[in-house]
Amino acid sequence: MGESMREIKIALIGAGSMGKNLTAAYQNIPRVFYPSTPIPRLRIVSDLVEERARKFAEQFEFERWTAHWEDAVADKQVDAVTIATPNHLHRDLVLAAANNGKHIFCEKPLAQNAGEGREMYEIVHKAGVKAMVGFVYTKNPLVLMARRMIEEGELGQIYHFRARFLQDWAMSPEVPFSWRFQRKTAGPGCVSDLGSHIIQMARFLVGEFDEVCALSSTFIHERPLPEVASPSEECPKEKVDIDDATGFLARFKSGAMGAFEVTRFAAGRKIAMGFEANGSKGSIDFDHERMNEINVYFTSDPEDRQGFRTILLGPAVPYAGLWFGIPGVGLGYDALVMIELYEFLEAIVNGREAKPDFYDGWKVCQVVDAIVAAARQKRWVKVDGF
Amino acid sequence: MGESMREIKIALIGAGSMGKNLTAAYQNIPRVFYPSTPIPRLRIVSDLVEERARKFAEQFEFERWTAHWEDAVADKQVDAVTIATPNHLHRDLVLAAANNGKHIFCEKPLAQNAGEGREMYEIVHKAGVKAMVGFVYTKNPLVLMARRMIEEGELGQIYHFRARFLQDWAMSPEVPFSWRFQRKTAGPGCVSDLGSHIIQMARFLVGEFDEVCALSSTFIHERPLPEVASPSEECPKEKVDIDDATGFLARFKSGAMGAFEVTRFAAGRKIAMGFEANGSKGSIDFDHERMNEINVYFTSDPEDRQGFRTILLGPAVPYAGLWFGIPGVGLGYDALVMIELYEFLEAIVNGREAKPDFYDGWKVCQVVDAIVAAARQKRWVKVDGF
Amino acid sequence: MGESMREIKIALIGAGSMGKNLTAAYQNIPRVFYPSTPIPRLRIVSDLVEERARKFAEQFEFERWTAHWEDAVADKQVDAVTIATPNHLHRDLVLAAANNGKHIFCEKPLAQNAGEGREMYEIVHKAGVKAMVGFVYTKNPLVLMARRMIEEGELGQIYHFRARFLQDWAMSPEVPFSWRFQRKTAGPGCVSDLGSHIIQMARFLVGEFDEVCALSSTFIHERPLPEVASPSEECPKEKVDIDDATGFLARFKSGAMGAFEVTRFAAGRKIAMGFEANGSKGSIDFDHERMNEINVYFTSDPEDRQGFRTILLGPAVPYAGLWFGIPGVGLGYDALVMIELYEFLEAIVNGREAKPDFYDGWKVCQVVDAIVAAARQKRWVKVDGF
Amino acid sequence: MGESMREIKIALIGAGSMGKNLTAAYQNIPRVFYPSTPIPRLRIVSDLVEERARKFAEQFEFERWTAHWEDAVADKQVDAVTIATPNHLHRDLVLAAANNGKHIFCEKPLAQNAGEGREMYEIVHKAGVKAMVGFVYTKNPLVLMARRMIEEGELGQIYHFRARFLQDWAMSPEVPFSWRFQRKTAGPGCVSDLGSHIIQMARFLVGEFDEVCALSSTFIHERPLPEVASPSEECPKEKVDIDDATGFLARFKSGAMGAFEVTRFAAGRKIAMGFEANGSKGSIDFDHERMNEINVYFTSDPEDRQGFRTILLGPAVPYAGLWFGIPGVGLGYDALVMIELYEFLEAIVNGREAKPDFYDGWKVCQVVDAIVAAARQKRWVKVDGF
Repeated sequence: MGESMREIKIALIGAGSMGKNLTAAYQNIPRVFYPSTPIPRLRIVSDLVEERARKFAEQFEFERWTAHWEDAVADKQVDAVTIATPNHLHRDLVLAAANNGKHIFCEKPLAQNAGEGREMYEIVHKAGVKAMVGFVYTKNPLVLMARRMIEEGELGQIYHFRARFLQDWAMSPEVPFSWRFQRKTAGPGCVSDLGSHIIQMARFLVGEFDEVCALSSTFIHERPLPEVASPSEECPKEKVDIDDATGFLARFKSGAMGAFEVTRFAAGRKIAMGFEANGSKGSIDFDHERMNEINVYFTSDPEDRQGFRTILLGPAVPYAGLWFGIPGVGLGYDALVMIELYEFLEAIVNGREAKPDFYDGWKVCQVVDAIVAAARQKRWVKVDGF
Repeated sequence: MGESMREIKIALIGAGSMGKNLTAAYQNIPRVFYPSTPIPRLRIVSDLVEERARKFAEQFEFERWTAHWEDAVADKQVDAVTIATPNHLHRDLVLAAANNGKHIFCEKPLAQNAGEGREMYEIVHKAGVKAMVGFVYTKNPLVLMARRMIEEGELGQIYHFRARFLQDWAMSPEVPFSWRFQRKTAGPGCVSDLGSHIIQMARFLVGEFDEVCALSSTFIHERPLPEVASPSEECPKEKVDIDDATGFLARFKSGAMGAFEVTRFAAGRKIAMGFEANGSKGSIDFDHERMNEINVYFTSDPEDRQGFRTILLGPAVPYAGLWFGIPGVGLGYDALVMIELYEFLEAIVNGREAKPDFYDGWKVCQVVDAIVAAARQKRWVKVDGF
Repeated sequence: MGESMREIKIALIGAGSMGKNLTAAYQNIPRVFYPSTPIPRLRIVSDLVEERARKFAEQFEFERWTAHWEDAVADKQVDAVTIATPNHLHRDLVLAAANNGKHIFCEKPLAQNAGEGREMYEIVHKAGVKAMVGFVYTKNPLVLMARRMIEEGELGQIYHFRARFLQDWAMSPEVPFSWRFQRKTAGPGCVSDLGSHIIQMARFLVGEFDEVCALSSTFIHERPLPEVASPSEECPKEKVDIDDATGFLARFKSGAMGAFEVTRFAAGRKIAMGFEANGSKGSIDFDHERMNEINVYFTSDPEDRQGFRTILLGPAVPYAGLWFGIPGVGLGYDALVMIELYEFLEAIVNGREAKPDFYDGWKVCQVVDAIVAAARQKRWVKVDGF
Repeated sequence: MGESMREIKIALIGAGSMGKNLTAAYQNIPRVFYPSTPIPRLRIVSDLVEERARKFAEQFEFERWTAHWEDAVADKQVDAVTIATPNHLHRDLVLAAANNGKHIFCEKPLAQNAGEGREMYEIVHKAGVKAMVGFVYTKNPLVLMARRMIEEGELGQIYHFRARFLQDWAMSPEVPFSWRFQRKTAGPGCVSDLGSHIIQMARFLVGEFDEVCALSSTFIHERPLPEVASPSEECPKEKVDIDDATGFLARFKSGAMGAFEVTRFAAGRKIAMGFEANGSKGSIDFDHERMNEINVYFTSDPEDRQGFRTILLGPAVPYAGLWFGIPGVGLGYDALVMIELYEFLEAIVNGREAKPDFYDGWKVCQVVDAIVAAARQKRWVKVDGF
């Protein structure tokens, strides 16, 4: 394959904060993964607010900008579309991109529901394009190591998987209304926004869900609109119709038990995406708030030498050596984004798998839908029914 | 009240490891709580195995021993009966003790089911005796502080309570069969053995449960019998008919959400009885494996000074000053047993409340029964139905 | 040896808070170490304040009390003298006890200086009595395990030993004057009070000191006297003539490097007696503020499985199984006192070594004296010179 | 100032791993600090090995490359020289750059000794160029917050500052010889390599050193040369003439006490650059191995609410909001390099101070020299004498 073919022209849809993270990653990939890397070129950025698109293009040196995503998706030069819009726009974007033969990287959650997810999975499958979903936390090198440990049987049979994604940013009633508080734009809600991360983490590490039961709450039922004509008027409010928090139990197809919680109302927990797996031969414990370390326990250690050992991120772990040659130096969240987009580009150029793909994205939607149904109907719900 | 009335004569039923812990506590109380303390006198110990009772009496200097608990419970000199037997014996012991007008300290879980628990609660209520249940972890001075913080509104409205009691002692298939693996003797199982601790912790800190859903597993379905006639024969096995692990979700009557897990199959977790409460003004995080510290977060701290603060056990905390005058010295599990029994004795002598009492014990059984029903019937179950 | 000879009659000198800890330990030993244990009998307690002695005897059920330690030490029935007085009284007490043929347990630091320490060592050696010094932190079962690991070469050659004993109780200028702030009564000061603990810890784990350099400070130069005739008068003050904090570097005879700090001015550190040993094969890290866990690292672990493992106190560790049969339950500081006094009693009854003994006590004084000289003379000082 | 003046043309000297880190930072700065930022342009890279320079230029898109640093430093278009060579080359590079009127960013330690450091400070001062030293750990936003807290008196009078930089990469005798093991190239050794970081940290937070005493060790006295003609021959070795580890005590001019350790022989410690400051009103505790959190203690908290609080990196902290809008997301080491180079560029363009500057670099050398003298001469040494 010639050198020129290693260049991938990127369209970005959505010039918000996640768009910024993704763009930064594209810019850094050629340097970090040098020399064995495809070269992303920032071809076009699209945002519904044209001024935002223009400024973003200027800042990050995209060749073009547009307020019409249809233009971006149809741009002949574009090889791959990167979707970082509110959730409800994913479907139309994906369909258009696939129909144009573009490879697709779409932020999580893939779809508003499992039906949409399946449709999106099928269209990209039929189109034969690479299609990946941005479950970024699964790309932490220490999580990749955890996966490998489980796959190779180091933990034995997995009995338990517990995970949580705890935040506190929505606790104040003064936090203004946004698209994240509305089913129409956000899909199921916190259960999907945060839940999709830990559901995919569970699938990645333990396998498919069989059935779930769940409990959801909305603690604050309306929120002030962000823009007010006059500060002297009483602030108009908008109804919140999604959950602020959801807990769910699960049985995995393997028989393992799952216990999960997502919330935006855990004071002091900022981005506490954590999990623990307990197997017949050992355990793994991880929390993104300490993303450069993982705790591992082996029952095979001598009885008086057993303990959770804290392994620091370092060059012995997948990818981490690309940054620094010694352990403990510390990567940031941005490195995880680089790893996922690098794998996306590699999949395009070298035909490797782009995982997690839209199948994963769809299956996560199924679990979310099952959870939502379980919470509403107050019963156990089979995941495969969605 | 005269000095002589401060002496309380104790009967202990059950000369096992918990009996030993309780006896040690009785022996230490007069010294630790000096001088404002009742004096327990070790009158009689009972065990079904007479030799065990005799040796125990000898070791701990009980005045008498017996293989017939009826004798112990009926001993005229005995003021208070302390029950540390397998669970299935609690009911008959309590009824006999109450009928003899004895005060009762009973290890948790109080009863095999809510019906029994209610019966026991009613009998002691009618008998007018003091009756306490040994939910020992709620007596950690730091937990008492947590309770006070919540009661006084320092955490605001509680949104979440999550708790876990993780152990790993039963993971090996070679762990022999014992009364803890059999419904007949152990009651509902791990859900009751470990679960009752965190259920009462939840009730203590957050209030009554409204409804629950649950998931239970038995990972190892039969266990070798401990005694084998000859090692050359194949080891005979006994069926396990209780859960090895249970997860449950709950709605509290206050509206708070609960998420819970108990298991004997979490490799590396030894006695990980922990909880976290998230309220509108702050959070509390505790784990018994680090029983001398508690983590507390306040949203009222300045934005750039917010963080979980690790408070060490010390004299500013209830009871802890009795041991050592400076923080950080460290108490052991045994101190918690002393505190609960001191409160039991104080209740008898000074008419104070003995909390948690049999009402609590019964309510915990209700929650356990609801969990068991929820797990079996795979549905949400109202706690008050039991 | 007959059963009756297993009874050891105890004289306690000093009815303060340490005396209370030691007495409690004596009371608990027969139960905890049952049945293979000597039985201490509380024969007599002495305190310069007679009323204190009387009350103490009453509380703890000593057979006798006295205000004259000479009586206690000469009491014919007494087998062993336990010294828990301010430091400056140790010497005369030890000499009298040894001359009366009594075994001796003396709180640390043994002596006011190395000369006194050597004299005390020689007298007990000549008298042929068992004589132990109360370096209680070395008796933590996890520390005993650490010692065994080092002895058996699990850490290889020790390159570094760093230790600290950080407290903050003296930070406020309002903390009143006491014997601990005066050379006459306290000996060298904080360097001896806290320093002796970590010096002996270092000797226990790494071996003898060769030479030291040091830096000392007194941050608050006078303290209010605790009792004031009238609160309206200005509070009289007393001069502080000891150090509030000392840091010292050391070369061990083995070639290992040592770095140490003791202070009463480390805000937030309550009883932070901690150490770390780095060897060619691994490291150990411990802090008494988390006294039920120790962190251990092995270079022999596979490269991507290396990490400090947190080992919880449990039955696999020396002594800990006596309390509870499972790990993680948690012992308190009081358990350490029981272990040291149990070993003292065992030494008397069964002729075992009572370690750390007065030789250790003397050697620690040598190191303290060398540190004091080094700090004053601002030079490196050989330890053997004292 | 016009937009065009915001462009700074960079020469990089030294195409090794640190050069890579610095280049990556330059590339990222315009995006991260957008829009209020100078724009670095990668003009020329120099390396003694021409092939290395060429490849580096290719990878990072420098306009030119050279094997002759004199060319790079004299390049008319270059505004600022970035020095990332072995230490012994710093002086000549700085002198040439200053004489050419270039601004200078030089990696730490600035010089081989204080004399050189002073010379370098004086030349840049005379040349009127901006000159900064790369003490990167002081640029952690949490460290900047710590500095502000101390400056504003939140910790009161500082009594203690203890710091450590512990690594373990040199422990194996098979680690090959490199310029870091030789005084000629590395300067004083580990004491300077790691020590300069914590010395500057101390100066940044507590102020100037007054005097020091020290202890150094070389544990492995010769190392194999990296390249061997034939593996069958015995591997030739080179003598190590620097320290592997150094401990030092210090008195600060403020009266505060300092205790420090640097080593490459602490098994399990990878990049454990940590410090603790204890003041009359509180304490701060930090370790780079958990670079996204800092622990802070205030004596002004209510007595039963005092504890070290763990503050996560977040937007309330200087700079951190530029990356992510919520706390806990996590930055990597690379972000620290961006911050320092951003401040360097800002200093050039906007005339701000470039701190730490060459005065700091020189003063750190003085402390290092004093430590080396103190260790060799085994005495306390005044820092100002160097």
